[in-house]
Amino acid sequence: RSFSLTTMSSNLRKTYTERAAVHPNPCARTFLELMERKRSNLSVAVDVTSKTELLEIAGKVGPYICLLKTHIDIVNDFDQDLVDQLKALSKKHDFMIFEDRKFADIGNTVKLQYGFGIYRIASWADITNCHSVPGEGIISGLKEIGLPLNRGLLLLAEMSSAGSLATGAYTAATVAMARRHQDFVIGFIAMRRMDAEDEGGDFIVMTPGVSLDVAGDGLGQQYRTPREVVVESGGDVVIVGRGIYGKGKNVEEQAKRYRDAGWEAYLERVRR
Amino acid sequence: RSFSLTTMSSNLRKTYTERAAVHPNPCARTFLELMERKRSNLSVAVDVTSKTELLEIAGKVGPYICLLKTHIDIVNDFDQDLVDQLKALSKKHDFMIFEDRKFADIGNTVKLQYGFGIYRIASWADITNCHSVPGEGIISGLKEIGLPLNRGLLLLAEMSSAGSLATGAYTAATVAMARRHQDFVIGFIAMRRMDAEDEGGDFIVMTPGVSLDVAGDGLGQQYRTPREVVVESGGDVVIVGRGIYGKGKNVEEQAKRYRDAGWEAYLERVRR
Repeated sequence: RSFSLTTMSSNLRKTYTERAAVHPNPCARTFLELMERKRSNLSVAVDVTSKTELLEIAGKVGPYICLLKTHIDIVNDFDQDLVDQLKALSKKHDFMIFEDRKFADIGNTVKLQYGFGIYRIASWADITNCHSVPGEGIISGLKEIGLPLNRGLLLLAEMSSAGSLATGAYTAATVAMARRHQDFVIGFIAMRRMDAEDEGGDFIVMTPGVSLDVAGDGLGQQYRTPREVVVESGGDVVIVGRGIYGKGKNVEEQAKRYRDAGWEAYLERVRR
Repeated sequence: RSFSLTTMSSNLRKTYTERAAVHPNPCARTFLELMERKRSNLSVAVDVTSKTELLEIAGKVGPYICLLKTHIDIVNDFDQDLVDQLKALSKKHDFMIFEDRKFADIGNTVKLQYGFGIYRIASWADITNCHSVPGEGIISGLKEIGLPLNRGLLLLAEMSSAGSLATGAYTAATVAMARRHQDFVIGFIAMRRMDAEDEGGDFIVMTPGVSLDVAGDGLGQQYRTPREVVVESGGDVVIVGRGIYGKGKNVEEQAKRYRDAGWEAYLERVRR
Protein backbone atom coordinates (compact mmCIF):
# COMPACT_ATOMS: atom_id res chain seq x y z
CA ARG A 1 0.00 0.00 0.00
CA SER A 2 2.70 2.53 0.85
CA PHE A 3 4.22 1.96 -2.56
CA SER A 4 1.08 2.87 -4.41
CA LEU A 5 0.55 5.93 -2.25
CA THR A 6 4.15 7.07 -2.75
CA THR A 7 3.78 6.97 -6.49
CA MET A 8 0.36 8.52 -6.46
CA SER A 9 -0.06 11.94 -5.11
CA SER A 10 2.20 14.72 -4.00
CA ASN A 11 -0.71 16.25 -2.15
CA LEU A 12 -0.38 13.38 0.29
CA ARG A 13 2.74 14.85 1.85
CA LYS A 14 1.61 18.44 1.69
CA THR A 15 0.03 20.06 4.71
CA TYR A 16 -3.53 21.31 4.46
CA THR A 17 -2.07 24.84 4.59
CA GLU A 18 0.25 24.19 1.68
CA ARG A 19 -2.61 22.80 -0.34
CA ALA A 20 -4.91 25.70 0.59
CA ALA A 21 -2.29 28.19 -0.58
CA VAL A 22 -2.49 26.96 -4.16
CA HIS A 23 -6.02 25.61 -4.37
CA PRO A 24 -8.08 27.33 -7.09
CA ASN A 25 -11.45 26.52 -5.50
CA PRO A 26 -12.62 29.00 -2.80
CA CYS A 27 -14.71 26.43 -0.93
CA ALA A 28 -11.89 23.87 -0.84
CA ARG A 29 -9.44 26.59 0.22
CA THR A 30 -11.65 27.74 3.08
CA PHE A 31 -12.09 24.16 4.25
CA LEU A 32 -8.37 23.25 4.10
CA GLU A 33 -7.49 26.41 6.05
CA LEU A 34 -10.13 25.58 8.63
CA MET A 35 -8.72 22.08 9.17
CA GLU A 36 -5.22 23.38 9.81
CA ARG A 37 -6.39 26.28 11.99
CA LYS A 38 -8.50 23.95 14.09
CA ARG A 39 -6.10 21.03 13.96
CA SER A 40 -8.93 18.67 13.09
CA ASN A 41 -9.73 16.42 10.17
CA LEU A 42 -12.69 14.92 11.98
CA SER A 43 -16.21 15.02 10.60
CA VAL A 44 -19.02 13.75 12.77
CA ALA A 45 -22.01 12.17 11.04
CA VAL A 46 -24.98 13.01 13.23
CA ASP A 47 -27.70 10.54 12.30
CA VAL A 48 -30.43 11.31 14.80
CA THR A 49 -34.13 11.94 14.27
CA SER A 50 -34.80 14.76 16.72
CA LYS A 51 -33.86 18.40 16.48
CA THR A 52 -32.93 18.64 20.16
CA GLU A 53 -30.61 15.67 19.94
CA LEU A 54 -28.99 16.90 16.71
CA LEU A 55 -28.30 20.32 18.24
CA GLU A 56 -27.07 18.80 21.48
CA ILE A 57 -24.57 16.55 19.71
CA ALA A 58 -23.51 19.33 17.34
CA GLY A 59 -22.84 21.58 20.33
CA LYS A 60 -20.78 18.92 22.07
CA VAL A 61 -18.67 17.82 19.09
CA GLY A 62 -18.42 21.36 17.70
CA PRO A 63 -15.06 22.23 19.31
CA TYR A 64 -13.41 19.10 17.87
CA ILE A 65 -14.63 18.87 14.30
CA CYS A 66 -13.89 20.51 10.97
CA LEU A 67 -17.16 19.39 9.44
CA LEU A 68 -20.60 18.48 10.72
CA LYS A 69 -22.25 15.89 8.49
CA THR A 70 -26.04 15.96 8.51
CA HIS A 71 -28.95 13.95 7.14
CA ILE A 72 -31.46 16.75 7.47
CA ASP A 73 -34.25 14.60 6.04
CA ILE A 74 -34.31 12.18 8.98
CA VAL A 75 -35.14 14.88 11.53
CA ASN A 76 -38.79 14.47 12.51
CA ASP A 77 -39.23 18.00 13.83
CA PHE A 78 -37.10 19.88 11.31
CA ASP A 79 -37.79 23.59 11.03
CA GLN A 80 -36.01 26.73 9.92
CA ASP A 81 -34.88 27.36 13.49
CA LEU A 82 -32.85 24.14 13.37
CA VAL A 83 -30.96 25.49 10.37
CA ASP A 84 -30.44 28.84 12.08
CA GLN A 85 -29.10 27.15 15.21
CA LEU A 86 -26.80 24.86 13.22
CA LYS A 87 -25.41 27.86 11.40
CA ALA A 88 -24.88 29.68 14.70
CA LEU A 89 -23.02 26.65 16.10
CA SER A 90 -20.87 26.42 12.98
CA LYS A 91 -19.88 30.03 13.48
CA LYS A 92 -19.31 29.70 17.21
CA HIS A 93 -17.19 26.54 16.97
CA ASP A 94 -15.63 27.19 13.53
CA PHE A 95 -16.80 24.18 11.55
CA MET A 96 -18.43 23.78 8.15
CA ILE A 97 -21.67 21.90 7.39
CA PHE A 98 -21.95 19.00 4.98
CA GLU A 99 -25.44 17.81 4.08
CA ASP A 100 -24.92 14.22 3.04
CA ARG A 101 -27.84 14.29 0.59
CA LYS A 102 -26.37 11.90 -1.97
CA PHE A 103 -28.21 13.53 -4.84
CA ALA A 104 -28.81 10.91 -7.49
CA ASP A 105 -31.23 12.24 -10.10
CA ILE A 106 -31.05 13.98 -13.45
CA GLY A 107 -29.80 17.58 -13.64
CA ASN A 108 -33.13 19.32 -13.79
CA THR A 109 -34.45 17.46 -10.74
CA VAL A 110 -31.42 17.87 -8.48
CA LYS A 111 -31.43 21.61 -9.15
CA LEU A 112 -34.88 21.74 -7.59
CA GLN A 113 -33.99 19.34 -4.75
CA TYR A 114 -30.86 21.34 -3.87
CA GLY A 115 -32.26 24.86 -4.09
CA PHE A 116 -35.94 24.46 -3.25
CA GLY A 117 -38.36 22.45 -1.13
CA ILE A 118 -38.69 22.60 2.62
CA TYR A 119 -34.98 22.12 3.23
CA ARG A 120 -33.43 24.63 0.78
CA ILE A 121 -30.15 22.74 1.27
CA ALA A 122 -28.06 25.11 -0.81
CA SER A 123 -28.96 27.99 1.49
CA TRP A 124 -27.15 26.53 4.52
CA ALA A 125 -24.97 23.51 3.62
CA ASP A 126 -21.44 24.56 2.71
CA ILE A 127 -20.83 21.18 1.13
CA THR A 128 -23.08 18.50 -0.31
CA ASN A 129 -22.52 15.37 -2.36
CA CYS A 130 -23.91 13.45 -5.29
CA HIS A 131 -23.70 10.14 -7.05
CA SER A 132 -22.27 10.08 -10.55
CA VAL A 133 -24.59 7.34 -11.81
CA PRO A 134 -26.99 9.70 -13.65
CA GLY A 135 -24.09 11.06 -15.74
CA GLU A 136 -22.49 14.47 -15.83
CA GLY A 137 -25.80 16.39 -15.99
CA ILE A 138 -26.17 15.95 -12.23
CA ILE A 139 -23.04 18.03 -11.63
CA SER A 140 -24.13 20.71 -14.11
CA GLY A 141 -27.56 20.91 -12.47
CA LEU A 142 -26.20 21.23 -8.92
CA LYS A 143 -23.56 23.69 -10.08
CA GLU A 144 -26.18 26.10 -11.40
CA ILE A 145 -27.48 26.44 -7.84
CA GLY A 146 -24.34 25.96 -5.74
CA LEU A 147 -21.58 27.78 -7.58
CA PRO A 148 -23.04 31.29 -7.17
CA LEU A 149 -23.21 30.57 -3.42
CA ASN A 150 -19.58 29.36 -3.23
CA ARG A 151 -20.70 25.87 -2.26
CA GLY A 152 -18.62 22.75 -2.82
CA LEU A 153 -19.61 19.32 -4.12
CA LEU A 154 -18.21 15.89 -3.30
CA LEU A 155 -18.69 13.00 -5.70
CA LEU A 156 -19.26 9.53 -4.33
CA ALA A 157 -16.35 7.70 -5.95
CA GLU A 158 -16.62 4.76 -3.57
CA MET A 159 -18.84 3.68 -0.69
CA SER A 160 -18.06 1.97 2.60
CA SER A 161 -20.98 -0.47 2.43
CA ALA A 162 -20.68 -4.16 1.51
CA GLY A 163 -21.21 -5.01 -2.16
CA SER A 164 -21.03 -1.38 -3.32
CA LEU A 165 -21.09 -1.06 -7.12
CA ALA A 166 -18.93 2.08 -7.00
CA THR A 167 -15.76 0.29 -8.02
CA GLY A 168 -13.49 -0.10 -11.04
CA ALA A 169 -14.75 1.63 -14.17
CA TYR A 170 -17.53 3.34 -12.18
CA THR A 171 -15.00 4.94 -9.85
CA ALA A 172 -12.73 5.90 -12.74
CA ALA A 173 -15.59 7.55 -14.63
CA THR A 174 -16.51 9.46 -11.46
CA VAL A 175 -12.97 10.77 -11.04
CA ALA A 176 -12.93 11.82 -14.70
CA MET A 177 -16.18 13.76 -14.19
CA ALA A 178 -14.72 15.53 -11.16
CA ARG A 179 -11.70 16.61 -13.16
CA ARG A 180 -13.98 18.30 -15.69
CA HIS A 181 -15.76 20.28 -12.94
CA GLN A 182 -13.00 21.47 -10.61
CA ASP A 183 -14.73 24.83 -10.23
CA PHE A 184 -17.41 23.09 -8.15
CA VAL A 185 -16.26 19.56 -7.27
CA ILE A 186 -13.89 19.84 -4.30
CA GLY A 187 -13.38 16.18 -3.57
CA PHE A 188 -14.63 12.66 -3.16
CA ILE A 189 -16.31 10.36 -0.76
CA ALA A 190 -13.94 7.43 -1.11
CA MET A 191 -12.12 4.78 0.83
CA ARG A 192 -8.69 5.85 -0.42
CA ARG A 193 -6.91 8.58 -2.33
CA MET A 194 -8.13 8.95 -5.92
CA ASP A 195 -5.15 9.20 -8.24
CA ALA A 196 -6.58 11.96 -10.41
CA GLU A 197 -4.35 14.28 -8.42
CA ASP A 198 -1.37 13.04 -10.34
CA GLU A 199 -2.82 14.90 -13.24
CA GLY A 200 -2.67 18.22 -11.49
CA GLY A 201 -5.83 18.56 -9.40
CA ASP A 202 -6.28 18.54 -5.64
CA PHE A 203 -9.33 16.72 -4.40
CA ILE A 204 -10.20 16.40 -0.72
CA VAL A 205 -10.92 12.78 0.14
CA MET A 206 -13.51 12.17 2.87
CA THR A 207 -13.87 8.64 4.18
CA PRO A 208 -16.95 7.31 5.99
CA GLY A 209 -17.21 4.14 8.00
CA VAL A 210 -14.52 5.08 10.52
CA SER A 211 -14.47 3.60 13.99
CA LEU A 212 -11.89 2.72 16.64
CA ASP A 213 -14.01 0.03 18.22
CA VAL A 214 -16.40 -1.97 16.02
CA ALA A 215 -16.52 -3.96 12.80
CA GLY A 216 -19.99 -3.52 11.26
CA ASP A 217 -23.63 -2.53 11.83
CA GLY A 218 -25.50 -5.55 10.48
CA LEU A 219 -26.79 -3.61 7.45
CA GLY A 220 -23.64 -3.74 5.38
CA GLN A 221 -21.60 -0.90 6.88
CA GLN A 222 -17.92 -1.79 7.26
CA TYR A 223 -15.53 0.10 9.58
CA ARG A 224 -11.84 1.11 9.49
CA THR A 225 -9.64 3.09 11.90
CA PRO A 226 -8.51 6.71 11.40
CA ARG A 227 -4.89 5.59 10.91
CA GLU A 228 -5.86 3.05 8.24
CA VAL A 229 -7.85 5.74 6.46
CA VAL A 230 -5.43 8.67 6.69
CA VAL A 231 -1.97 7.06 6.65
CA GLU A 232 -2.50 3.85 4.74
CA SER A 233 -5.20 4.99 2.31
CA GLY A 234 -4.54 8.73 2.03
CA GLY A 235 -7.94 10.01 3.17
CA ASP A 236 -8.07 13.67 4.27
CA VAL A 237 -11.17 13.67 6.46
CA VAL A 238 -12.40 10.86 8.68
CA ILE A 239 -16.16 10.60 9.06
CA VAL A 240 -17.26 9.05 12.34
CA GLY A 241 -20.84 8.38 13.38
CA ARG A 242 -22.17 6.20 16.15
CA GLY A 243 -18.62 5.62 17.40
CA ILE A 244 -18.91 9.07 18.96
CA TYR A 245 -22.51 9.43 20.14
CA GLY A 246 -23.71 5.82 20.36
CA LYS A 247 -25.41 4.48 23.48
CA GLY A 248 -23.53 5.15 26.70
CA LYS A 249 -20.79 7.21 25.06
CA ASN A 250 -19.35 10.38 26.54
CA VAL A 251 -19.70 12.46 23.39
CA GLU A 252 -17.05 15.11 24.14
CA GLU A 253 -14.53 12.48 25.21
CA GLN A 254 -15.10 10.41 22.10
CA ALA A 255 -14.97 13.45 19.82
CA LYS A 256 -11.64 14.47 21.36
CA ARG A 257 -10.35 10.90 21.06
CA TYR A 258 -11.22 10.68 17.37
CA ARG A 259 -9.99 14.22 16.68
CA ASP A 260 -6.62 13.29 18.22
CA ALA A 261 -6.43 9.98 16.36
CA GLY A 262 -7.25 11.63 13.04
CA TRP A 263 -4.84 14.51 13.56
CA GLU A 264 -1.96 12.28 14.67
CA ALA A 265 -2.51 10.15 11.58
CA TYR A 266 -2.38 13.28 9.43
CA LEU A 267 0.85 14.47 11.09
CA GLU A 268 2.38 11.03 10.57
CA ARG A 269 1.44 11.15 6.91
CA VAL A 270 2.78 14.60 6.10
CA ARG A 271 6.01 13.95 8.04
CA ARG A 272 6.85 10.90 5.91
CA ARG B 1 -34.91 -5.46 -31.42
CA SER B 2 -38.02 -7.60 -31.83
CA PHE B 3 -35.81 -10.67 -31.94
CA SER B 4 -34.26 -10.01 -28.58
CA LEU B 5 -37.65 -9.21 -27.06
CA THR B 6 -39.16 -12.39 -28.48
CA THR B 7 -36.48 -14.48 -26.93
CA MET B 8 -36.55 -12.60 -23.69
CA SER B 9 -39.69 -12.59 -21.68
CA SER B 10 -43.01 -14.34 -21.81
CA ASN B 11 -44.44 -11.60 -19.59
CA LEU B 12 -44.18 -9.35 -22.61
CA ARG B 13 -47.13 -10.95 -24.31
CA LYS B 14 -49.18 -11.45 -21.18
CA THR B 15 -51.82 -8.93 -20.23
CA TYR B 16 -51.46 -7.05 -16.96
CA THR B 17 -54.41 -9.11 -15.68
CA GLU B 18 -52.72 -12.39 -16.55
CA ARG B 19 -49.57 -11.24 -14.78
CA ALA B 20 -51.52 -10.01 -11.75
CA ALA B 21 -53.22 -13.39 -11.40
CA VAL B 22 -49.94 -15.18 -10.74
CA HIS B 23 -47.83 -12.42 -9.20
CA PRO B 24 -46.61 -13.33 -5.69
CA ASN B 25 -46.12 -9.73 -4.58
CA PRO B 26 -49.26 -7.97 -3.22
CA CYS B 27 -48.11 -4.47 -4.19
CA ALA B 28 -47.26 -5.54 -7.76
CA ARG B 29 -50.55 -7.43 -8.03
CA THR B 30 -52.56 -4.41 -6.90
CA PHE B 31 -50.75 -2.20 -9.37
CA LEU B 32 -51.13 -4.56 -12.36
CA GLU B 33 -54.85 -4.94 -11.64
CA LEU B 34 -55.23 -1.18 -11.39
CA MET B 35 -53.58 -0.66 -14.80
CA GLU B 36 -55.93 -3.09 -16.53
CA ARG B 37 -59.01 -1.79 -14.70
CA LYS B 38 -58.19 1.76 -15.60
CA ARG B 39 -56.79 0.97 -19.04
CA SER B 40 -53.76 3.13 -18.36
CA ASN B 41 -50.03 2.52 -18.19
CA LEU B 42 -49.31 6.22 -17.88
CA SER B 43 -47.43 7.72 -14.97
CA VAL B 44 -47.16 11.48 -14.76
CA ALA B 45 -44.05 12.94 -13.15
CA VAL B 46 -45.17 16.13 -11.47
CA ASP B 47 -42.05 18.20 -10.94
CA VAL B 48 -43.41 21.45 -9.57
CA THR B 49 -42.40 23.45 -6.51
CA SER B 50 -45.78 24.58 -5.16
CA LYS B 51 -48.40 22.59 -3.33
CA THR B 52 -51.27 24.25 -5.20
CA GLU B 53 -49.76 23.49 -8.56
CA LEU B 54 -48.97 19.89 -7.62
CA LEU B 55 -52.53 19.28 -6.44
CA GLU B 56 -53.99 21.04 -9.47
CA ILE B 57 -52.01 18.89 -11.90
CA ALA B 58 -52.68 15.71 -9.90
CA GLY B 59 -56.40 16.45 -10.01
CA LYS B 60 -56.35 17.04 -13.76
CA VAL B 61 -54.25 14.01 -14.73
CA GLY B 62 -55.82 11.77 -12.09
CA PRO B 63 -58.48 10.22 -14.35
CA TYR B 64 -55.88 9.17 -16.93
CA ILE B 65 -53.00 7.76 -14.91
CA CYS B 66 -52.15 4.58 -13.07
CA LEU B 67 -49.39 6.20 -11.06
CA LEU B 68 -48.59 9.70 -9.86
CA LYS B 69 -44.85 10.25 -9.62
CA THR B 70 -43.78 12.85 -7.08
CA HIS B 71 -40.61 14.61 -5.94
CA ILE B 72 -42.01 15.64 -2.59
CA ASP B 73 -38.75 17.35 -1.61
CA ILE B 74 -39.01 20.07 -4.25
CA VAL B 75 -42.32 21.42 -2.90
CA ASN B 76 -41.60 24.70 -1.14
CA ASP B 77 -44.77 24.73 0.95
CA PHE B 78 -45.03 21.01 1.72
CA ASP B 79 -47.21 20.09 4.70
CA GLN B 80 -49.16 17.11 5.96
CA ASP B 81 -52.29 18.47 4.28
CA LEU B 82 -50.58 18.02 0.90
CA VAL B 83 -50.10 14.35 1.66
CA ASP B 84 -53.70 14.00 2.83
CA GLN B 85 -55.00 15.65 -0.32
CA LEU B 86 -52.80 13.53 -2.58
CA LYS B 87 -54.06 10.40 -0.88
CA ALA B 88 -57.66 11.58 -1.30
CA LEU B 89 -57.05 12.19 -5.00
CA SER B 90 -55.47 8.77 -5.41
CA LYS B 91 -58.59 7.22 -3.92
CA LYS B 92 -60.99 9.36 -5.92
CA HIS B 93 -59.30 8.76 -9.27
CA ASP B 94 -57.93 5.27 -8.58
CA PHE B 95 -54.18 5.76 -9.00
CA MET B 96 -51.17 4.83 -6.89
CA ILE B 97 -48.42 7.16 -5.69
CA PHE B 98 -44.74 6.74 -6.48
CA GLU B 99 -42.30 8.96 -4.59
CA ASP B 100 -39.28 9.09 -6.88
CA ARG B 101 -36.85 9.51 -3.99
CA LYS B 102 -33.95 7.60 -5.54
CA PHE B 103 -32.63 6.47 -2.16
CA ALA B 104 -28.89 6.02 -2.48
CA ASP B 105 -27.36 5.57 0.97
CA ILE B 106 -26.40 2.69 3.24
CA GLY B 107 -29.14 0.55 4.81
CA ASN B 108 -29.22 2.18 8.20
CA THR B 109 -29.56 5.68 6.72
CA VAL B 110 -32.24 4.91 4.13
CA LYS B 111 -34.37 3.28 6.82
CA LEU B 112 -34.48 6.63 8.59
CA GLN B 113 -34.97 8.63 5.39
CA TYR B 114 -37.84 6.40 4.28
CA GLY B 115 -39.71 6.07 7.55
CA PHE B 116 -38.90 9.27 9.41
CA GLY B 117 -38.19 12.96 8.91
CA ILE B 118 -40.67 15.58 7.80
CA TYR B 119 -41.86 13.57 4.80
CA ARG B 120 -42.44 10.11 6.33
CA ILE B 121 -42.43 8.79 2.77
CA ALA B 122 -43.32 5.20 3.71
CA SER B 123 -46.55 6.39 5.30
CA TRP B 124 -48.08 7.57 2.02
CA ALA B 125 -46.06 6.49 -1.04
CA ASP B 126 -47.22 3.10 -2.35
CA ILE B 127 -44.02 2.77 -4.34
CA THR B 128 -40.55 4.27 -4.05
CA ASN B 129 -37.21 3.57 -5.69
CA CYS B 130 -33.55 3.26 -4.90
CA HIS B 131 -30.16 3.03 -6.53
CA SER B 132 -28.23 -0.20 -6.19
CA VAL B 133 -24.82 1.47 -5.95
CA PRO B 134 -24.52 1.14 -2.12
CA GLY B 135 -24.94 -2.64 -2.40
CA GLU B 136 -27.71 -4.88 -1.19
CA GLY B 137 -27.94 -3.34 2.29
CA ILE B 138 -30.00 -0.51 0.83
CA ILE B 139 -32.76 -2.96 -0.11
CA SER B 140 -32.64 -4.67 3.29
CA GLY B 141 -32.85 -1.31 5.05
CA LEU B 142 -35.82 -0.05 3.04
CA LYS B 143 -37.54 -3.42 3.32
CA GLU B 144 -37.54 -3.25 7.11
CA ILE B 145 -39.76 -0.17 6.85
CA GLY B 146 -41.72 -0.83 3.66
CA LEU B 147 -42.60 -4.51 3.73
CA PRO B 148 -44.86 -4.38 6.82
CA LEU B 149 -46.78 -1.60 5.04
CA ASN B 150 -47.15 -3.59 1.77
CA ARG B 151 -45.07 -1.05 -0.11
CA GLY B 152 -43.15 -1.82 -3.29
CA LEU B 153 -39.64 -0.86 -4.38
CA LEU B 154 -38.23 -0.18 -7.83
CA LEU B 155 -34.51 -0.46 -8.49
CA LEU B 156 -32.86 1.94 -10.89
CA ALA B 157 -31.40 -0.51 -13.37
CA GLU B 158 -30.86 2.17 -16.01
CA MET B 159 -31.38 5.91 -16.34
CA SER B 160 -32.59 8.06 -19.20
CA SER B 161 -29.94 10.74 -18.78
CA ALA B 162 -26.88 11.14 -21.02
CA GLY B 163 -23.72 9.43 -19.84
CA SER B 164 -25.47 7.35 -17.16
CA LEU B 165 -23.18 4.83 -15.49
CA ALA B 166 -26.07 2.40 -14.91
CA THR B 167 -25.11 0.13 -17.80
CA GLY B 168 -23.53 -3.24 -18.42
CA ALA B 169 -22.28 -4.98 -15.28
CA TYR B 170 -23.91 -2.34 -13.07
CA THR B 171 -27.33 -3.08 -14.57
CA ALA B 172 -26.76 -6.83 -14.38
CA ALA B 173 -25.78 -6.62 -10.70
CA THR B 174 -28.92 -4.55 -10.05
CA VAL B 175 -31.15 -7.14 -11.69
CA ALA B 176 -29.47 -9.89 -9.66
CA MET B 177 -30.16 -7.95 -6.44
CA ALA B 178 -33.82 -7.56 -7.39
CA ARG B 179 -34.14 -11.31 -7.94
CA ARG B 180 -32.96 -11.91 -4.39
CA HIS B 181 -35.61 -9.55 -2.96
CA GLN B 182 -38.79 -10.32 -4.90
CA ASP B 183 -40.83 -9.98 -1.73
CA PHE B 184 -40.21 -6.22 -1.85
CA VAL B 185 -38.73 -5.28 -5.24
CA ILE B 186 -41.58 -5.09 -7.75
CA GLY B 187 -39.69 -3.76 -10.73
CA PHE B 188 -37.16 -1.50 -12.35
CA ILE B 189 -36.67 1.96 -13.63
CA ALA B 190 -35.13 1.03 -16.96
CA MET B 191 -35.12 1.89 -20.63
CA ARG B 192 -36.05 -1.62 -21.71
CA ARG B 193 -37.21 -4.97 -20.40
CA MET B 194 -34.73 -6.56 -17.98
CA ASP B 195 -34.23 -10.20 -18.89
CA ALA B 196 -34.26 -11.51 -15.34
CA GLU B 197 -37.87 -12.41 -16.04
CA ASP B 198 -36.69 -15.31 -18.14
CA GLU B 199 -35.59 -16.84 -14.93
CA GLY B 200 -39.07 -16.92 -13.52
CA GLY B 201 -39.73 -13.52 -11.96
CA ASP B 202 -42.05 -10.79 -13.11
CA PHE B 203 -40.70 -7.29 -12.74
CA ILE B 204 -42.66 -4.20 -13.76
CA VAL B 205 -40.53 -1.96 -15.96
CA MET B 206 -41.14 1.77 -15.69
CA THR B 207 -39.47 4.01 -18.23
CA PRO B 208 -38.87 7.75 -17.73
CA GLY B 209 -37.93 10.26 -20.38
CA VAL B 210 -41.03 9.71 -22.50
CA SER B 211 -42.34 12.42 -24.81
CA LEU B 212 -44.23 12.65 -28.10
CA ASP B 213 -42.80 16.00 -29.03
CA VAL B 214 -39.24 16.86 -27.93
CA ALA B 215 -35.72 15.52 -27.91
CA GLY B 216 -33.98 16.76 -24.73
CA ASP B 217 -33.93 19.33 -21.93
CA GLY B 218 -30.41 20.73 -22.13
CA LEU B 219 -29.38 19.04 -18.87
CA GLY B 220 -28.87 15.56 -20.26
CA GLN B 221 -32.43 14.21 -20.33
CA GLN B 222 -33.15 12.18 -23.50
CA TYR B 223 -36.69 11.43 -24.71
CA ARG B 224 -38.42 8.50 -26.45
CA THR B 225 -42.03 7.90 -27.56
CA PRO B 226 -44.53 5.60 -25.76
CA ARG B 227 -44.49 3.16 -28.70
CA GLU B 228 -40.69 2.94 -28.68
CA VAL B 229 -40.78 2.27 -24.95
CA VAL B 230 -43.66 -0.20 -24.74
CA VAL B 231 -43.56 -2.08 -28.06
CA GLU B 232 -39.93 -1.90 -29.06
CA SER B 233 -38.31 -1.98 -25.62
CA GLY B 234 -40.89 -3.83 -23.53
CA GLY B 235 -41.52 -1.16 -20.88
CA ASP B 236 -44.72 -1.54 -18.82
CA VAL B 237 -45.26 2.00 -17.61
CA VAL B 238 -44.43 5.21 -19.46
CA ILE B 239 -43.38 8.12 -17.29
CA VAL B 240 -44.15 11.52 -18.81
CA GLY B 241 -43.33 14.88 -17.27
CA ARG B 242 -43.25 18.30 -18.85
CA GLY B 243 -44.76 16.85 -22.05
CA ILE B 244 -48.07 16.93 -20.21
CA TYR B 245 -48.03 20.05 -18.05
CA GLY B 246 -45.34 22.20 -19.67
CA LYS B 247 -45.98 25.83 -20.60
CA GLY B 248 -49.11 26.42 -22.63
CA LYS B 249 -50.25 22.77 -22.48
CA ASN B 250 -53.83 21.71 -21.92
CA VAL B 251 -53.09 19.23 -19.16
CA GLU B 252 -56.20 17.03 -19.49
CA GLU B 253 -55.84 16.86 -23.26
CA GLN B 254 -52.19 15.89 -23.05
CA ALA B 255 -52.81 13.33 -20.29
CA LYS B 256 -55.52 11.71 -22.42
CA ARG B 257 -53.24 11.79 -25.47
CA TYR B 258 -50.39 10.06 -23.63
CA ARG B 259 -52.74 7.62 -21.90
CA ASP B 260 -54.13 6.61 -25.31
CA ALA B 261 -50.67 6.34 -26.89
CA GLY B 262 -49.37 4.21 -24.02
CA TRP B 263 -52.41 1.95 -23.94
CA GLU B 264 -52.45 1.42 -27.72
CA ALA B 265 -48.79 0.49 -27.56
CA TYR B 266 -49.56 -2.02 -24.79
CA LEU B 267 -52.44 -3.56 -26.80
CA GLU B 268 -50.18 -3.81 -29.83
CA ARG B 269 -47.56 -5.58 -27.75
CA VAL B 270 -49.81 -8.17 -26.09
CA ARG B 271 -51.58 -8.92 -29.39
CA ARG B 272 -48.32 -9.87 -31.11
